[in-house]
Amino acid sequence: MALLKSVLLQRALCGSLSSSSTNLLRLKWAHFAWSQSQSMSAFAAVMSPPSKAVVYENHGPPDSVTRVIEVGPVEVKEDDVCVKMVAAPINPSDINRIEGVYPVRPQVPAVGGYEGVGEVFSVGSAVKDLSPGDWVIPFPPSFGTWQTYIVKERGVWHKIDKDSPMEYAATVTVNPLTALRMLEDFVTLNSGDSIVQNGATSIVGQCIIQLARLRGIHSINIIRDRAGSDEVEEKLKKLGADEVFTESQLDVKNVKSVLATLPEPALVFNCVGGNSASLVMKFLRQGGTMVTYGGMSKKPITVSTSSFIFKDLSLRGFWLQKWIIADKAQECRRMIDYLLRLAKDGKLKYVMEMAPFDNFHNALDKALGKLGSQPKQVIKF
Amino acid sequence: MALLKSVLLQRALCGSLSSSSTNLLRLKWAHFAWSQSQSMSAFAAVMSPPSKAVVYENHGPPDSVTRVIEVGPVEVKEDDVCVKMVAAPINPSDINRIEGVYPVRPQVPAVGGYEGVGEVFSVGSAVKDLSPGDWVIPFPPSFGTWQTYIVKERGVWHKIDKDSPMEYAATVTVNPLTALRMLEDFVTLNSGDSIVQNGATSIVGQCIIQLARLRGIHSINIIRDRAGSDEVEEKLKKLGADEVFTESQLDVKNVKSVLATLPEPALVFNCVGGNSASLVMKFLRQGGTMVTYGGMSKKPITVSTSSFIFKDLSLRGFWLQKWIIADKAQECRRMIDYLLRLAKDGKLKYVMEMAPFDNFHNALDKALGKLGSQPKQVIKF
Repeated sequence: MALLKSVLLQRALCGSLSSSSTNLLRLKWAHFAWSQSQSMSAFAAVMSPPSKAVVYENHGPPDSVTRVIEVGPVEVKEDDVCVKMVAAPINPSDINRIEGVYPVRPQVPAVGGYEGVGEVFSVGSAVKDLSPGDWVIPFPPSFGTWQTYIVKERGVWHKIDKDSPMEYAATVTVNPLTALRMLEDFVTLNSGDSIVQNGATSIVGQCIIQLARLRGIHSINIIRDRAGSDEVEEKLKKLGADEVFTESQLDVKNVKSVLATLPEPALVFNCVGGNSASLVMKFLRQGGTMVTYGGMSKKPITVSTSSFIFKDLSLRGFWLQKWIIADKAQECRRMIDYLLRLAKDGKLKYVMEMAPFDNFHNALDKALGKLGSQPKQVIKF
Repeated sequence: MALLKSVLLQRALCGSLSSSSTNLLRLKWAHFAWSQSQSMSAFAAVMSPPSKAVVYENHGPPDSVTRVIEVGPVEVKEDDVCVKMVAAPINPSDINRIEGVYPVRPQVPAVGGYEGVGEVFSVGSAVKDLSPGDWVIPFPPSFGTWQTYIVKERGVWHKIDKDSPMEYAATVTVNPLTALRMLEDFVTLNSGDSIVQNGATSIVGQCIIQLARLRGIHSINIIRDRAGSDEVEEKLKKLGADEVFTESQLDVKNVKSVLATLPEPALVFNCVGGNSASLVMKFLRQGGTMVTYGGMSKKPITVSTSSFIFKDLSLRGFWLQKWIIADKAQECRRMIDYLLRLAKDGKLKYVMEMAPFDNFHNALDKALGKLGSQPKQVIKF
């Protein structure tokens, strides 16, 4: 009976998580329907292997509401692909989704995880362009990558080069794609231009440094004041950062003097807010744009009226999830391929820690910061 | 000798005010050069009539640094037009320029005034498309409209319909053009859409109401809490406002309930800043834009990180002066003609008070608020 329940959960979670029908009532209805169907057509269908998944039935603290359960086989319909997951990260936004504080609140019960990489295990009879052994990532990314087998329709899988480094394939969609999109979408940048960012030690920040450098764009990077900032500076400069400053090294009234020979930036990236946002905004040239994609300080952004009127600044925001559905999917898939080639060639790097799925809750504790500062946790299935 | 000095001042002020050479040294040099030239070519040239001008030789409080002086005739060169000024307003930005607090600080000595309307008095020999009696406005607007005669090259005069109401011709370039440009330039609005603005009682605000209504666009208008707000509401509704609220009538957390059947706005205009800016921002729909064009509260604008990321708001600014030089001059001229037709047809209205030039300093005191709340002062020459 425990297995049966798991099958129903899996059925509810696969393929229809975003519809309003995925709820407890539906689960009960599915239970009934499934019981009926077993007597008529059982075992005529192609089924997935049984799976293990990280599920949560209520929103709340991730370490207490998530559990790893066993789920039974699921039918692989003619347009479906059954993917054996290889790796999937624990991103901060995954944690927010489980907590229920993300603007898009997943309906529970749900499987955790938003991005990842897997290997095709079997395909439905109508799927001709994927074969067992191919590597795929879910694109657009979607809930439920923290499970060993996933069955979803062909359309949501993007085939990638099998030579891609596994941990980068697992993490390419959220952070590197954000960095690349933000460099491409707001201001036309040319070789020799410069950009400024705060929160430069984040993975997005590190990607921005490297992707900018590849295009000949200079980066000025602001980091927090804390012990070890010299090592951080050295590390970022190795990645290609032109300038690295702690917030206290900058006199807010005279930030432009630190530009030295660099051109005044037309674009800054802000993932901190508060004073740090005010600081990076000061770097902007007339008519420049600040793009906010995070708010680590949990403080709002304050802007003078004259910054808008006389300096003609534009303040925008970036949210990958909205962006991906905004008719840019094909372009994003090309960008993902480009980013994975860079990773394969060693031109895009960031630190991750592989964590065995069997020890998921230890990795989760690390991702939650319960064990001090840790690299990004990537679950290896 | 007083007349001679005035002539030199006029020479310095006409045509070259924006160059760095307009300063005291230049004035002294011009004095010398002019003295020399008088003996050789005096009176061969076509000259303007003598003029009276409001000048200031230093930045400071407008009521103490401005004085009305007599200036002698100025040569009307072959490409020049001599215009007898008819009317010119005292705008808040004129006051800021004299105070020296405007981002573009006029070089002194300078003649006050930025916009106005005049009648062609005489034209240089090469000017074929303007004749004495034609009505013109300086476009792009420029410093120095507070004088009875102005000599400037043909290119800076825009001929307008002589049937235009004089006080609207004098004031069309700054406030109505700002309103129209802001409605046109940031978001594509269709009939049935709605916009929100604070500071709705300003002349720009009143123009926005009327121009929006002419295009079938609904306006939601926020005004300050003060005695007489009922009459203000009635007045704005007569102009075409759909909704008028004082700030205290709106619950910040539930502003959208006041929209009733109106669509969620994609565009808000802010000329106040501080809490009032936060209030109007709340009305914006996903992906909407707030345009700041003033900061009457002298308080900055504060925005949450999530407004940028998850609500995808864009914050922009509008400054007419920059806008006009940004390659849009022809379009602006067409807009001015449109606005003057509306004014002539009674479809664009706002309250002004004509003030005789002979009593300039009384009008200035009114514009400075020294005599309580007063309508916009328009000098009649």
